[in-house]
Amino acid sequence: MTALSTLTTVEAASALARASVAIIPIGATEQHGPHLDLRTDIAIATELARRLDQSLGERSILCPPLAYGLSEHHLGFAGTLTLRPATLLAFLRDVCESLVANGITKVVVVNGHGGNTDATRLAAREIGRDLGCSVAHLMWGQLIGDLTPAYFEPGHRYHHACEIETSLALECDPSLVHTDALTGPAEIAPLDGFTDSPGGRVDLPQPFSRWSANGALGDPRRASPEIGKTLVDAFLDRAVAFTEQFIDDPAKEPAP
Amino acid sequence: MTALSTLTTVEAASALARASVAIIPIGATEQHGPHLDLRTDIAIATELARRLDQSLGERSILCPPLAYGLSEHHLGFAGTLTLRPATLLAFLRDVCESLVANGITKVVVVNGHGGNTDATRLAAREIGRDLGCSVAHLMWGQLIGDLTPAYFEPGHRYHHACEIETSLALECDPSLVHTDALTGPAEIAPLDGFTDSPGGRVDLPQPFSRWSANGALGDPRRASPEIGKTLVDAFLDRAVAFTEQFIDDPAKEPAP
Amino acid sequence: MTALSTLTTVEAASALARASVAIIPIGATEQHGPHLDLRTDIAIATELARRLDQSLGERSILCPPLAYGLSEHHLGFAGTLTLRPATLLAFLRDVCESLVANGITKVVVVNGHGGNTDATRLAAREIGRDLGCSVAHLMWGQLIGDLTPAYFEPGHRYHHACEIETSLALECDPSLVHTDALTGPAEIAPLDGFTDSPGGRVDLPQPFSRWSANGALGDPRRASPEIGKTLVDAFLDRAVAFTEQFIDDPAKEPAP
Amino acid sequence: MTALSTLTTVEAASALARASVAIIPIGATEQHGPHLDLRTDIAIATELARRLDQSLGERSILCPPLAYGLSEHHLGFAGTLTLRPATLLAFLRDVCESLVANGITKVVVVNGHGGNTDATRLAAREIGRDLGCSVAHLMWGQLIGDLTPAYFEPGHRYHHACEIETSLALECDPSLVHTDALTGPAEIAPLDGFTDSPGGRVDLPQPFSRWSANGALGDPRRASPEIGKTLVDAFLDRAVAFTEQFIDDPAKEPAP
Amino acid sequence: MTALSTLTTVEAASALARASVAIIPIGATEQHGPHLDLRTDIAIATELARRLDQSLGERSILCPPLAYGLSEHHLGFAGTLTLRPATLLAFLRDVCESLVANGITKVVVVNGHGGNTDATRLAAREIGRDLGCSVAHLMWGQLIGDLTPAYFEPGHRYHHACEIETSLALECDPSLVHTDALTGPAEIAPLDGFTDSPGGRVDLPQPFSRWSANGALGDPRRASPEIGKTLVDAFLDRAVAFTEQFIDDPAKEPAP
Amino acid sequence: MTALSTLTTVEAASALARASVAIIPIGATEQHGPHLDLRTDIAIATELARRLDQSLGERSILCPPLAYGLSEHHLGFAGTLTLRPATLLAFLRDVCESLVANGITKVVVVNGHGGNTDATRLAAREIGRDLGCSVAHLMWGQLIGDLTPAYFEPGHRYHHACEIETSLALECDPSLVHTDALTGPAEIAPLDGFTDSPGGRVDLPQPFSRWSANGALGDPRRASPEIGKTLVDAFLDRAVAFTEQFIDDPAKEPAP
Repeated sequence: MTALSTLTTVEAASALARASVAIIPIGATEQHGPHLDLRTDIAIATELARRLDQSLGERSILCPPLAYGLSEHHLGFAGTLTLRPATLLAFLRDVCESLVANGITKVVVVNGHGGNTDATRLAAREIGRDLGCSVAHLMWGQLIGDLTPAYFEPGHRYHHACEIETSLALECDPSLVHTDALTGPAEIAPLDGFTDSPGGRVDLPQPFSRWSANGALGDPRRASPEIGKTLVDAFLDRAVAFTEQFIDDPAKEPAP
Repeated sequence: MTALSTLTTVEAASALARASVAIIPIGATEQHGPHLDLRTDIAIATELARRLDQSLGERSILCPPLAYGLSEHHLGFAGTLTLRPATLLAFLRDVCESLVANGITKVVVVNGHGGNTDATRLAAREIGRDLGCSVAHLMWGQLIGDLTPAYFEPGHRYHHACEIETSLALECDPSLVHTDALTGPAEIAPLDGFTDSPGGRVDLPQPFSRWSANGALGDPRRASPEIGKTLVDAFLDRAVAFTEQFIDDPAKEPAP
Repeated sequence: MTALSTLTTVEAASALARASVAIIPIGATEQHGPHLDLRTDIAIATELARRLDQSLGERSILCPPLAYGLSEHHLGFAGTLTLRPATLLAFLRDVCESLVANGITKVVVVNGHGGNTDATRLAAREIGRDLGCSVAHLMWGQLIGDLTPAYFEPGHRYHHACEIETSLALECDPSLVHTDALTGPAEIAPLDGFTDSPGGRVDLPQPFSRWSANGALGDPRRASPEIGKTLVDAFLDRAVAFTEQFIDDPAKEPAP
Repeated sequence: MTALSTLTTVEAASALARASVAIIPIGATEQHGPHLDLRTDIAIATELARRLDQSLGERSILCPPLAYGLSEHHLGFAGTLTLRPATLLAFLRDVCESLVANGITKVVVVNGHGGNTDATRLAAREIGRDLGCSVAHLMWGQLIGDLTPAYFEPGHRYHHACEIETSLALECDPSLVHTDALTGPAEIAPLDGFTDSPGGRVDLPQPFSRWSANGALGDPRRASPEIGKTLVDAFLDRAVAFTEQFIDDPAKEPAP
Repeated sequence: MTALSTLTTVEAASALARASVAIIPIGATEQHGPHLDLRTDIAIATELARRLDQSLGERSILCPPLAYGLSEHHLGFAGTLTLRPATLLAFLRDVCESLVANGITKVVVVNGHGGNTDATRLAAREIGRDLGCSVAHLMWGQLIGDLTPAYFEPGHRYHHACEIETSLALECDPSLVHTDALTGPAEIAPLDGFTDSPGGRVDLPQPFSRWSANGALGDPRRASPEIGKTLVDAFLDRAVAFTEQFIDDPAKEPAP
Repeated sequence: MTALSTLTTVEAASALARASVAIIPIGATEQHGPHLDLRTDIAIATELARRLDQSLGERSILCPPLAYGLSEHHLGFAGTLTLRPATLLAFLRDVCESLVANGITKVVVVNGHGGNTDATRLAAREIGRDLGCSVAHLMWGQLIGDLTPAYFEPGHRYHHACEIETSLALECDPSLVHTDALTGPAEIAPLDGFTDSPGGRVDLPQPFSRWSANGALGDPRRASPEIGKTLVDAFLDRAVAFTEQFIDDPAKEPAP
């Protein structure tokens, strides 16, 4: 229920003894169009993780956020900083190794950046195999991926600096949104039935500038605090429910 | 149109000069329940890749398959062999580096094993950044992921040794299927709204034995050559269409 | 002058064009005795970096902090999380590689944790050799290492959770200090002329519990906001003066 | 006696319980002059491994082949694909780690490509030290290296796309040989008493184009199915005898 | 008391059974101005290590020296050879792993090159964590760093090819010093209060040519055998005293 | 003609400008039976390299030796120290990278330890591909491998601590040989037609204790200075001839 960071080691000893799960927020420092802070992904992840931790009471501890992620596809836009995949894999492994040394063998990564998904999933698998630690990955675009299409307009891409992410930002930390810089849809390349969802899906990494001229998707002007609250609440309901099950369900114990 | 393997270097020089894209089949050697060969994933990938290559004529070359993938979650079942993630990342990088040396800068990975998806996506991103080579990832479970639910029954998991994969096997190589060993649904853990699709989605790696007692999903007895043909044809239609676009679309050139 | 995190990419483009140096705060999540937060090192580094960035106006940008460092010697105390050396080396390299892509080739690492010094120095050397980027390392215990002995009492170790670091904490962020938990000197192993300074110096890594029974050094009760302000001001005066020289002195350009 | 690939996991469980040794064929995808397929090395290795496995009955299992090897010296000829050494080392280690998990601690690598020898030997040593698994390396050029000189003509190099390897190809898979493209000896650099055998031996890696203008050695026209059969039979006799001894001899158990 | 190198394995078995600590000399092959051999650092380290080993009698064994270190900042001067940091880290780890296999769990690295300090300290920490082996680092510039300033003249840098190191060379091995090439102070960049000691200290790696035009510091003409003897004796007194304490003090046992 | 180590940087600049090739001696610290020093391999390599360098006059420079090699198979005998393969690969790469920075692109590794052969060959290949540096590997057991069988007795293994290596030691440095400890043939496992030469050859790494109870092969009592001189002279004649050709032959230039 409390961020590990704000505890002394004496307090941490108690908190860790009571806790069953650790939460690690990860995100990115990357361009989010003309109207959102570079910190948007990590700010949203940090706030979602904080609320999740709060909801779980003594059953969880909250680890410090990692503000850097895998954003090589955004390097064409100023201000983007990226790790290499092996670095993020090692970071997650090292932190889980430390958590195991602290008696915690269940970890929830709350991820604010879709670009971290591949590496987090991969890290989780190897951590499970090698360290006896079970790592779950929660990304809002995925956990509430059935709810966001209600806000889609045809012909647009979503889930990066669009009205949906901007709404989440308004709910999580309104200072993320530069409302005076909100603009309508950027010039975007036409949707592609293969590399854009929905429809058939092909993975093809591309520089983000090929998807949007200004780095934003959708129509960010359509963002609202109400949408943000709706989606964040839905994320949290599910995240809490999942984590409670993760804690309690014998079938979700780390592999022997 | 021809497997690189069956060419001499003299023939390869011509084929490479004409080709715009290389196709690499990857899969796994892993348990597929009591009725499918351990080679099922790589056999399906190899056949899908062969047909794709054939459809593309001189525009493509076909590389040899990699029969080993990331299958650590199946190690509890006999016969499973797995690579570590870093090995698969390195393999894909090395082959792409070689292809670039041969003048090919567009690659399609035809992947028969969902467990390879994370690493292939990650490899593609770093290969794009470092080697000036653009790598697309095609996995049947994803490219025709909108078509397979038509065959789902409630309460089951799918896409591994189920009627769908078994049908694909019947179409791609009937010898993969031990029809005398076809059994009804295995004892499976109940579906979980979080870690099973559809619905909210959480990534949580688990030993496959927690999902199915015999290593198979669904009800493999419901497989048929007809379903296999329908799905394989759909996969190929899309794979060909995507690859043609990949070859021709200036917006899909490797990043500078 | 502004944290990169709180800029949009459009603003970042301007800020990066004007800036000559990037500042990266690094620290640790590690035990700091019974009276200081686990976040003490990164909190101090973040605040020192913020003030340094502010003093430099448009000449600098401030990168997000890294809250994890090399703290394996503190793993015996609850709440400590540690990276492995190769991970921190990779992190610094990746961020500098990104900064170079953003046009920045001079970096100041403001480090709040002495345990990160080895790796940061080593990273700086290889980054200089390979990436054409010059990395300076500022650690308060070192930059004002001539001023802190004025507060030493004989027979004690210093610079971790002692009155000096506690004073810095009071100046940087008073909420770091749990004043009700302030206690007198812990039971400590006697000073050793070889592995403790001053005097001859041998490097011998040891579990921190061998140096202090409760994880703190010195007599934290002697900490005061005044000492904190004196030391922080001295650090900043020097850090600003150094960084201005780093920016302007042709002899400090990155090696060709 | 059966390829692991063609078993179900249920069958594999039985086969593994009975088997004492696993066989892994490795080779390359590399130029073999104007008359042999790029797959020649892996095709020969796969066939030799298949026959070896068959001869051993229930005492062995056969793993899938790896069609990629270390062929950087052939990159000057079209169609060559190469791994980097660390990748092949990791591949062998991962597969052996998996085999150990399946209860197999003796492995025979049947290698069709001399260029893989260094790495396979090195991998075998570290696998022995770290994993409790004993790895033997069989390469035809070495195992029957006393028999092939009977077919040598003075002034030629051998063992790559020459009459000897071409004869092996005719025996193992005649479709490897493009008989219409068989030509006499290529222009080759004069033999060198130091870097060519027999005689004193110096290791000096060189692009293969320095040894042969067309990528082939010897005089491939002199190849015959009879020579192929003689040599393959000799290889198999010895390979079977060795492997039986490897299985039975207590002195060849994996190191403790 | 005897170099391991000059023992047979039979003798080594006895020596190792009696010894409590191993000594490893490390140094560099790097420029030392116009008057000192490139081997100066490793030659001094080897001689200091030899004397230390001799003083310890049967309590120590002496390992072979490593003549290569981290000298990338000297690459601008001819004859410098450098390792990369990861290589030195791996070297130290491998040797300690071997020593542990020989029953030795305490190691003293006698280092003649300041540029190796970062990596040796870092290696020592990870070796302690992972291998149950305790590694101490002795560098003369540090162990007798309180004695050398007595020989400093204002306005000069010291500790590389200066009168101090030249004096050590005269004591350790006079053939290191090309007395006919001894020259007065080189043209040096002015001392910098930040990156030169004493005073505030910032770490900023720079090509050595920025510090001295001829690669030497101080005024090597002021070197003398007497200074060398004084300093070497002081180093040895402390090194012996430390190592005896290292051997005997239960508080310096390797971490469990 | 002179060891780089004994030059100043000024002298090294001249020597490097005149030289065409660098020589690096590598060996091992490993058991050599009851009568030879642990340093035997590196001592022989160093002396052979010294003589080769001397014969080449100004055309060569001599680098410092590496006394550690790959000796994991000897770890069962006291005093053996071993590197891991990746460490030796990295060492050779780093030194060659440094030599290229010094203008040298041809390197001769004089190797005194057969166990280093795999890794040195592999390193040479990747260094050639990546660094534009051509690396030749000379090992006495190989370069004069046609001459040593004249001294073989049936039923024995050779080339490690046998009469041949002991003879080389007597010629290179008689202090290597503990003549009072010379004994007759150790109890050895019977020769094996597969894993012992001559005859068919299989690579099977085994603990050396399986080959010889006391760590020595052959009958070391039969060693003589005369045999040593004969073999060393032969080695040198060939090594000089090869290196001259390596220097002069355009066909042996580093690959472009």
